[in-house]
Amino acid sequence: MMNEMTSKEELTVDPGLAYHSKLFWLAKAMWRIVEQDWQDHLRGHHLTINEYSILRVVAKKDSCRVTDVSSYGLMHVSTALNSSQSLKKRGLVHLEKDVEDTRVTIVTITEEGRELLNEVDTSISFEESMLEGGLEKIESLVGLKPSFSDTQSLIYSTFGRDMFEYFSNATDIM
Amino acid sequence: MMNEMTSKEELTVDPGLAYHSKLFWLAKAMWRIVEQDWQDHLRGHHLTINEYSILRVVAKKDSCRVTDVSSYGLMHVSTALNSSQSLKKRGLVHLEKDVEDTRVTIVTITEEGRELLNEVDTSISFEESMLEGGLEKIESLVGLKPSFSDTQSLIYSTFGRDMFEYFSNATDIM
Repeated sequence: MMNEMTSKEELTVDPGLAYHSKLFWLAKAMWRIVEQDWQDHLRGHHLTINEYSILRVVAKKDSCRVTDVSSYGLMHVSTALNSSQSLKKRGLVHLEKDVEDTRVTIVTITEEGRELLNEVDTSISFEESMLEGGLEKIESLVGLKPSFSDTQSLIYSTFGRDMFEYFSNATDIM
Repeated sequence: MMNEMTSKEELTVDPGLAYHSKLFWLAKAMWRIVEQDWQDHLRGHHLTINEYSILRVVAKKDSCRVTDVSSYGLMHVSTALNSSQSLKKRGLVHLEKDVEDTRVTIVTITEEGRELLNEVDTSISFEESMLEGGLEKIESLVGLKPSFSDTQSLIYSTFGRDMFEYFSNATDIM
């Protein structure tokens, strides 16, 4: 009992802060790995991560409002709008005002946009990627690739079923 | 056997791409949640996520090169340098040339920098955070908060033990 009290007294950091701080670094580190890999690949197609994310969203959802693009693409509305405008200049999406509410902008993918996504998918290789390097070490020890089930649970409970399913099958419909 | 073949033929997406694409969205979504929470909190202390990350790194490591700041803070070297310069203007870090190699810049935290980190830590509350909202739903179903063990394994296998331990105890030394 004495030892337990001593070790509790030695805790200088609020446990909630320590947990959240650890998740801050885990999330930043994982995104840094994934971002780096995809940036390297997408650079060859002259796409940023956010432009690619928008193309994925509108390829799946056919046409959606800029606010939906921002939700499903996980970016600020201003980023969604600016990046959609860059894509429009390259003929990869159409932007139109909603006939029912002209304050709303609708984003639709063009045939060129679909073709570019298809090029991205068919030319990508993960063999040399930073993520694959880390995953392979785990696979060689554990026998299978990790499922990231805690992250999946978090995304499901934070964003709900509809967005979770979208994220799980983002490449399905082309 | 016939069914198995049919279902394989129906797979239109390369399994490697599907897995990596799912991890892309999981990582982006988790970072989006965490980034949003910390941005909201750090705004009150006039800090960006990267400035905060730099302060954390140099608070723990006492003095380190800009390249170390970029590795441990998980950002590009150019971002590490620019953000360190912003922190220097506010008297939160010192920047000095290494005496042995003047191409190398050494970042050291000031007393003001430590005080600001302490203010950030003591004023933070996660009760209303997006992350806590998601975690609480999981806790109420499972009985405990998730450990994100797969993410931890990935960070360990990608960045090694030293950086993993740093991320795990980032708030320990103040």
